[in-house]
Amino acid sequence: MRLALDWAAKAMYLTAPNPRVGCVIVRDGVVIGAGHTQPPGQAHAEVMALRDAEARGHDVRGATAYVTLEPCSHFGRTPPCADALVLAGLGRVVAAMTDPNPLVAGDGLRKLEEAGIATTAGVLADEAYEMNTGFFQRMRFGRPWVRLKVAASLDGTTALESGESQWITGADARADGHAWRARADAILTGIGTVKSDDPQLTVRAIDIPRQPRRIVVDSRLEIALDAKVLAGGGAWIFAAQADKNKTAALRDAGHEVILIPNAAGKVDLPTLVAELGQRQVNELHVEAGHKLNGSLVREGCVDELLLYYAPTLIGPGQGMFALPALPRLADKHELTFHEVRRVGTDLRILARFQK
Amino acid sequence: MRLALDWAAKAMYLTAPNPRVGCVIVRDGVVIGAGHTQPPGQAHAEVMALRDAEARGHDVRGATAYVTLEPCSHFGRTPPCADALVLAGLGRVVAAMTDPNPLVAGDGLRKLEEAGIATTAGVLADEAYEMNTGFFQRMRFGRPWVRLKVAASLDGTTALESGESQWITGADARADGHAWRARADAILTGIGTVKSDDPQLTVRAIDIPRQPRRIVVDSRLEIALDAKVLAGGGAWIFAAQADKNKTAALRDAGHEVILIPNAAGKVDLPTLVAELGQRQVNELHVEAGHKLNGSLVREGCVDELLLYYAPTLIGPGQGMFALPALPRLADKHELTFHEVRRVGTDLRILARFQK
Repeated sequence: MRLALDWAAKAMYLTAPNPRVGCVIVRDGVVIGAGHTQPPGQAHAEVMALRDAEARGHDVRGATAYVTLEPCSHFGRTPPCADALVLAGLGRVVAAMTDPNPLVAGDGLRKLEEAGIATTAGVLADEAYEMNTGFFQRMRFGRPWVRLKVAASLDGTTALESGESQWITGADARADGHAWRARADAILTGIGTVKSDDPQLTVRAIDIPRQPRRIVVDSRLEIALDAKVLAGGGAWIFAAQADKNKTAALRDAGHEVILIPNAAGKVDLPTLVAELGQRQVNELHVEAGHKLNGSLVREGCVDELLLYYAPTLIGPGQGMFALPALPRLADKHELTFHEVRRVGTDLRILARFQK
Repeated sequence: MRLALDWAAKAMYLTAPNPRVGCVIVRDGVVIGAGHTQPPGQAHAEVMALRDAEARGHDVRGATAYVTLEPCSHFGRTPPCADALVLAGLGRVVAAMTDPNPLVAGDGLRKLEEAGIATTAGVLADEAYEMNTGFFQRMRFGRPWVRLKVAASLDGTTALESGESQWITGADARADGHAWRARADAILTGIGTVKSDDPQLTVRAIDIPRQPRRIVVDSRLEIALDAKVLAGGGAWIFAAQADKNKTAALRDAGHEVILIPNAAGKVDLPTLVAELGQRQVNELHVEAGHKLNGSLVREGCVDELLLYYAPTLIGPGQGMFALPALPRLADKHELTFHEVRRVGTDLRILARFQK
């Protein structure tokens, strides 16, 4: 299964909006075939592993397939993988986890069992889950997994009052941040950050086959047409106020403007997140300023914080999250630490909101 | 040496102002004697180990002694341990580290070598150093090792504006904080914390033979005679303004008032720290509010931050350190992460200021 997870990791930037899945076929302790899910419409991991075994001249009848997610049992853009495994005559299928979508969970394994194939599920399930948090989130709740990144000093400062923020964390942490950008389907920021920092929000430290889509929350449609985040086209601009000329200009440049106002005349953030689910965004990476960060947290739109702490004290400046003062400490936003790790000279924390 | 460090740890609360030292005597792979430093004026680790071997009927001639610090070579309150090892006829002495005091470093080992005993130094030296950071700091620089504790949310808030701060971190982190209090010779706080929280600043979670001394920074000598931090007597109150009556009342209650004003009419903190060195304080534990925390950092009085982060976001409130705004990010206070560890549901970070 460890090997199968390695194969799934090779599919990191390829499979969206499908999950990243790896499959390894083993006979008598020897790997005779392996593969991972291909881009949408092409073969899934199980079929790739079967083809690999065939190409290498191996007979898969009676062999064991290790797959990082329960084989699919339904016709989508490709035929069901469970059928392919049955046809090939596999002896046993071990799945890291069942499909967490309650509507299909267990169907794939059941189909295999009905065909006389022994099945096991729940092997390295946590790691398999982490590979596809976004896909599972979307299947279960219709919305992407939202990961919000902040780099701060130990006293929670992200920039001086002047806006100076380059650099608080070191080169290793910044490269690591690019790896998280890379695995996301889309990167979201706010107009405040666009105006003050003019970031590209592209992945530059890693060679990837596609750039994540850029998304800007821009209630009053203030974005400049030459903003770097718009370079290359295809951005989604979420606004709360219509502006016919600006919208036309943005559309001419290949971008899309989506109007989702709330009662306060701002972009309605929960609706935005739901809309991204509709648009098949699995993983959303947020890099914004303390205002949008605070709004996203306050409105329950964030699943996970990706925090980089530099071993420094900065004192007054911009904070991590603009949140309203709490009446009581018991009202604090509760998370749990998912992972804590040193990255270069800095510290990386993944913390998840308690649901 | 691992065993010798375990013995040193048994001396944690006993030896101040002397270092915590352990010694294990081994012959043919068998431990024949072990011991640790006793309270001041009593036997050091080496002598305790020799006595233990004798009491157990072992002949130590030709055996190897593992000791967590280079044996002393001078007459203090007890005769030099190096002499005792020579007299006993040890064959070899392995020291975790040489004495970091440049005036005596190597003398103990040299004395042994001159007597024909083989010596080795530098075995688990880092761990041996950590056992006595305070003693070494005082020997080298005449001042204690200053460890400052803060418990905060991920966004760096330590209390609501109302002052409510119980509890941000969990029970495990609070018990861990008591363990750090326990190993300190003294605990320092500010009059602001005394007035707002009225803490006892005693060690309650751990059974220890002595309570660390309580120290209050109280420039205007505002402390109430019934403040809990004064319970039991023996507190040191550092002030900047004389107040004959208050001073007399505090002295009558068994406390000491020390006047160390600076030009601004506040307690001069670097002088305070130097004074604690004079008074043989090895490790100083600071639990104060953001104002005194900020002053101590700004004036270069802190060696190490002991930070507990709870997996929460709190938003506006009291910060960790009241520091002046920086003109440039390059002026930030630089530290290095020494240790990062989960404690219960919280995170504990030890970070050290770069010198």
